[in-house]
Amino acid sequence: MGLFRIVLLFSLCSLISRAFSHETVNAHNNHILPRPLILKYPDNLIETQLNQLNEEVKLQCTTWRFAVEANNLNPWKTIPRECLEYVRDYMMGRGYGLDLERVSNEAGVYAKSVELRGDGKDAWIFDIDETLLSNLPYYQEHGYGLEIFDPVEFDKWVEKAMSPAIEASLKLYEEVLGLGFKIFLLTGRSEKQRSITVDNLINAGVRYWDKLILRSSDDHGKLAIIYKSEKRNEMVQEGYRILGNSGDQWSDLLGSPMPSRSFKLPNPMYYIP
Amino acid sequence: MGLFRIVLLFSLCSLISRAFSHETVNAHNNHILPRPLILKYPDNLIETQLNQLNEEVKLQCTTWRFAVEANNLNPWKTIPRECLEYVRDYMMGRGYGLDLERVSNEAGVYAKSVELRGDGKDAWIFDIDETLLSNLPYYQEHGYGLEIFDPVEFDKWVEKAMSPAIEASLKLYEEVLGLGFKIFLLTGRSEKQRSITVDNLINAGVRYWDKLILRSSDDHGKLAIIYKSEKRNEMVQEGYRILGNSGDQWSDLLGSPMPSRSFKLPNPMYYIP
Repeated sequence: MGLFRIVLLFSLCSLISRAFSHETVNAHNNHILPRPLILKYPDNLIETQLNQLNEEVKLQCTTWRFAVEANNLNPWKTIPRECLEYVRDYMMGRGYGLDLERVSNEAGVYAKSVELRGDGKDAWIFDIDETLLSNLPYYQEHGYGLEIFDPVEFDKWVEKAMSPAIEASLKLYEEVLGLGFKIFLLTGRSEKQRSITVDNLINAGVRYWDKLILRSSDDHGKLAIIYKSEKRNEMVQEGYRILGNSGDQWSDLLGSPMPSRSFKLPNPMYYIP
Repeated sequence: MGLFRIVLLFSLCSLISRAFSHETVNAHNNHILPRPLILKYPDNLIETQLNQLNEEVKLQCTTWRFAVEANNLNPWKTIPRECLEYVRDYMMGRGYGLDLERVSNEAGVYAKSVELRGDGKDAWIFDIDETLLSNLPYYQEHGYGLEIFDPVEFDKWVEKAMSPAIEASLKLYEEVLGLGFKIFLLTGRSEKQRSITVDNLINAGVRYWDKLILRSSDDHGKLAIIYKSEKRNEMVQEGYRILGNSGDQWSDLLGSPMPSRSFKLPNPMYYIP
């Protein structure tokens, strides 16, 4: 048990120093563990150091997550390896749910405060994946974003139409619908997935919308931020006023035209440019 | 000591239930503490419950901070009372510094990746307060954002020209300057504060810029997002390409025209619309 702790401590030290520094690993460091030096420490000191290391990883991963959510990161393909446990804890614990509730509540307060013209042109846009529907069951099986995105595997999951609703978003959707907004669902999913997407939405409790916009063959290969901007532009050309926009990716929310208010749902698992 | 803990526990319970629910406080609840009921618990259980309450506050305040940084909150005037300790710990501990370093590093990576045309029209905008200069010494004395902003008191602090540099931003500023970007400092401070602002910037190590733009008398009363958009628009009219923008408020970064990339520095202490 003592030895196990030492090995664990050493692995963690090495993992952290590699993860959070830009230095290359020096081959000369691949020597045998300095056992006598470490064995001098009593067990409770090692325990304390392990806790400190855990705290350090948590702190660094929190910083990483805030950089994700504030859109400060340069494009990324996978979550940092050392943040796997952190992201899993966040997604499966209360953090993710609380963040979803908060954004839903703030959006609801805003929606109620908006004066609608009532001419049928007041619109709210919802993204689908990780906004109305959750693919968390898929990502649980794929390292919470640690694995590089596999479109073939993901499409198999989509074809099952089993994505559950994100409850907090469903609540907002119902409020916004009840207030008289036109509901536009704007997704990066392909037009080929329309029927399965409709099935999934209905099963999850999203039973009404004014438009469900998916990527047509012309839209494939476009960055999401371009594709979604173009679709918003079409709405504006048709006379709609986009008063609210909910999405988990900044590419759902930025670009032009900008809706009056945008709401960024949390998503530390993947990044779509 | 036991009694102190009980009172503390009860205060915390009451604080949390009021803070995180939308229910109004019922006057009938102002009765005497149910001492016999609580006194039955042994000390270590109370300790555990106190820790749980602390964890709960931390979780809720982390959610609040995420909502701040992702621009999800409706306009706010002060930080939540129950998050005072959380915000203080964040600002005075390592969290704030790590977040500043992360955003500076990401901006630096981006800045180096941009191909400059070299015609003297490639520009980077920096906000001043909580971006290049820190007013943390002022906010330490004013409840880390728990007190409603007092412009008279704050101006007295500004007049001292004692705001230290934000080291991570200074590093980015020097990198960006070295790469050949034009440097525009765009601040919500008044034109009357130009000379003291120049003194403060120079003292803090910001010794060069191409333009320092402050609010003229025409700009007073404008929302920051409008004023800053107008100033960016003037830059674009003059032929500048705004390739990067660093600010701690979303009103520094949103609006039109949008720079190619924006970097949101952390600031959980105040909100400027």
